[in-house]
Amino acid sequence: MGSVLVLYDSKTGNTAKMAGYVAQGAGEIPETQVRLLSVDEASADDIFWCDGMAVGSPTYVGVLSWKMKRFWDEVVPKVWGKTDGKIACAFSSSGGWGGGAELTCLSLHIMLMNFGFLVFGIPDYTGEAFTLHYGAVVAREPRREEEIAACRRLGKRLAQWVAVYVDGRREHRPGPIKQR
Amino acid sequence: MGSVLVLYDSKTGNTAKMAGYVAQGAGEIPETQVRLLSVDEASADDIFWCDGMAVGSPTYVGVLSWKMKRFWDEVVPKVWGKTDGKIACAFSSSGGWGGGAELTCLSLHIMLMNFGFLVFGIPDYTGEAFTLHYGAVVAREPRREEEIAACRRLGKRLAQWVAVYVDGRREHRPGPIKQR
Amino acid sequence: MGSVLVLYDSKTGNTAKMAGYVAQGAGEIPETQVRLLSVDEASADDIFWCDGMAVGSPTYVGVLSWKMKRFWDEVVPKVWGKTDGKIACAFSSSGGWGGGAELTCLSLHIMLMNFGFLVFGIPDYTGEAFTLHYGAVVAREPRREEEIAACRRLGKRLAQWVAVYVDGRREHRPGPIKQR
Amino acid sequence: MGSVLVLYDSKTGNTAKMAGYVAQGAGEIPETQVRLLSVDEASADDIFWCDGMAVGSPTYVGVLSWKMKRFWDEVVPKVWGKTDGKIACAFSSSGGWGGGAELTCLSLHIMLMNFGFLVFGIPDYTGEAFTLHYGAVVAREPRREEEIAACRRLGKRLAQWVAVYVDGRREHRPGPIKQR
Repeated sequence: MGSVLVLYDSKTGNTAKMAGYVAQGAGEIPETQVRLLSVDEASADDIFWCDGMAVGSPTYVGVLSWKMKRFWDEVVPKVWGKTDGKIACAFSSSGGWGGGAELTCLSLHIMLMNFGFLVFGIPDYTGEAFTLHYGAVVAREPRREEEIAACRRLGKRLAQWVAVYVDGRREHRPGPIKQR
Repeated sequence: MGSVLVLYDSKTGNTAKMAGYVAQGAGEIPETQVRLLSVDEASADDIFWCDGMAVGSPTYVGVLSWKMKRFWDEVVPKVWGKTDGKIACAFSSSGGWGGGAELTCLSLHIMLMNFGFLVFGIPDYTGEAFTLHYGAVVAREPRREEEIAACRRLGKRLAQWVAVYVDGRREHRPGPIKQR
Repeated sequence: MGSVLVLYDSKTGNTAKMAGYVAQGAGEIPETQVRLLSVDEASADDIFWCDGMAVGSPTYVGVLSWKMKRFWDEVVPKVWGKTDGKIACAFSSSGGWGGGAELTCLSLHIMLMNFGFLVFGIPDYTGEAFTLHYGAVVAREPRREEEIAACRRLGKRLAQWVAVYVDGRREHRPGPIKQR
Repeated sequence: MGSVLVLYDSKTGNTAKMAGYVAQGAGEIPETQVRLLSVDEASADDIFWCDGMAVGSPTYVGVLSWKMKRFWDEVVPKVWGKTDGKIACAFSSSGGWGGGAELTCLSLHIMLMNFGFLVFGIPDYTGEAFTLHYGAVVAREPRREEEIAACRRLGKRLAQWVAVYVDGRREHRPGPIKQR
């Protein structure tokens, strides 16, 4: 049974809302255990526990927030070198389009790769001219249908890769992508 | 008199349209010469000529287009090591929001930094929840007011930094930023 | 039986040498088919064929070479949307330490993520103060023992992830990491 | 008279040593005031004070340290929108070559660009196959001649750009670059 951790930091509540949708999406794949935790609640044990994780941070000057960074910096001595091969992805809410949400996801990917995690984005479009190639990104609150769908798709795809690759349940492999 | 090069590659015409607006913006600062050139028209001489440049590429799988890359790879032997200190910025049109336009600007910045150029983004918001912190970005065609304004703002700011820093015309220094 | 593609561009031969070592490393895992191809020899079929791929480019002003970019830009219409879920990693030879090899690997990762590939780096150290957290990187020719070991480790780990995740051969899971 | 801030975080002392050399380099340009401050000592006033800044962080899982990030996250409300146009660069010490020092400099650049700073790297080589295209990078302690020279070169170039662009002292413009 696959296990998915959705880990987030949030200041205004926007990234927390995204996290909720990501967790919902992960729950769409049967036989998937999902933990939704803020960075204040999580510990090294949660990283050991999960097969895959989605990590979300508000876009703070184009890079993950210091609280999310502190969590990982401090957890390094406990988990680093013992957890490679997990599957990971990213999401972020920024103050505006063009404000660095993609780059914040990139900073999360770079950090997660250092632990040996396999990181991924999603080719799918969830609306007209709206996608999540480098993780789910939103300006401010996730409100529009395609934004919420992007968060859910991220969690679902994470759970799918966990099902396919970790659990060997090939029937959960996603089909070809439709571009819009 | 400051000189600004707007250099772009475009396949569908969207990045070309952005380039046109960027050039317009640069023209808003008096005593600024502006050249607007596609990557097929430009040569090493244009790089030597300019004090500042805005470089635009379509978002092709999250990185600048091969044609724009080829231009710079091939111009390296002629200009590299002789042009550092120029001021540069980036813009990109992608197939969708979340599709890698910020990352394409990043790839342009990384490339331009290698030449010793000083690269910049813009804190200003040009609309509600719309900014150009890492260069002007648009999904598909620049159509909405804030998108066109972002392109113009990029060109204008480039011309301002050229006026202030290269020409020493301090009166063109931009004022404090308003966030929206 | 896992299939690994080692795809590279090389101008001076240095990245080609890295590619050879990467392919050797992939061959260390039993029941792994390995194709070693330059970007001039490869086609869309090779991407469809492989389960995992290592992509190498010389560091050209901090971003992958235009020839490597052209390959992917041109292959997009054929493979994009049909190949997500493959596992991928990167390597690069630069003109000097601090010259952008990590960033070139990053540009490769960003490009590969766009296709929906799962990208990874390697926590392991292959020598004193020498690692490949973001892919194998070398200044000029791979010559020192730890540099060659890094290339081989990259290929081996790629073949391991393919064995573990695609083929379900869990016995090939790499053990805990030793830091030096 | 130009003012240069060298701001650093350091855990093991290695990045602090780099910072010392960077400050030395800045001091090589006449009529330059230099402040060397750890992130625990600095405040918003130091950012307002300086014309240019070099920001250094240890490489912590490929991204700037949480303490350096906290400094900037917390200073945002005071300085953001009032300090664009300053000139900035980056440096980092990592645990090993290939370990993410370039990427950590990139995270610093991305953060600094958000404030509207003009960021730069340096084409110069300071030794055989050793450069600082994206800021000064070192594995562990800066010990070899070219590593120390890279740190000094970074500070010197920062002071040069401040002299040339902010103070209008054109005679400090660096000459053409020699590649090694």
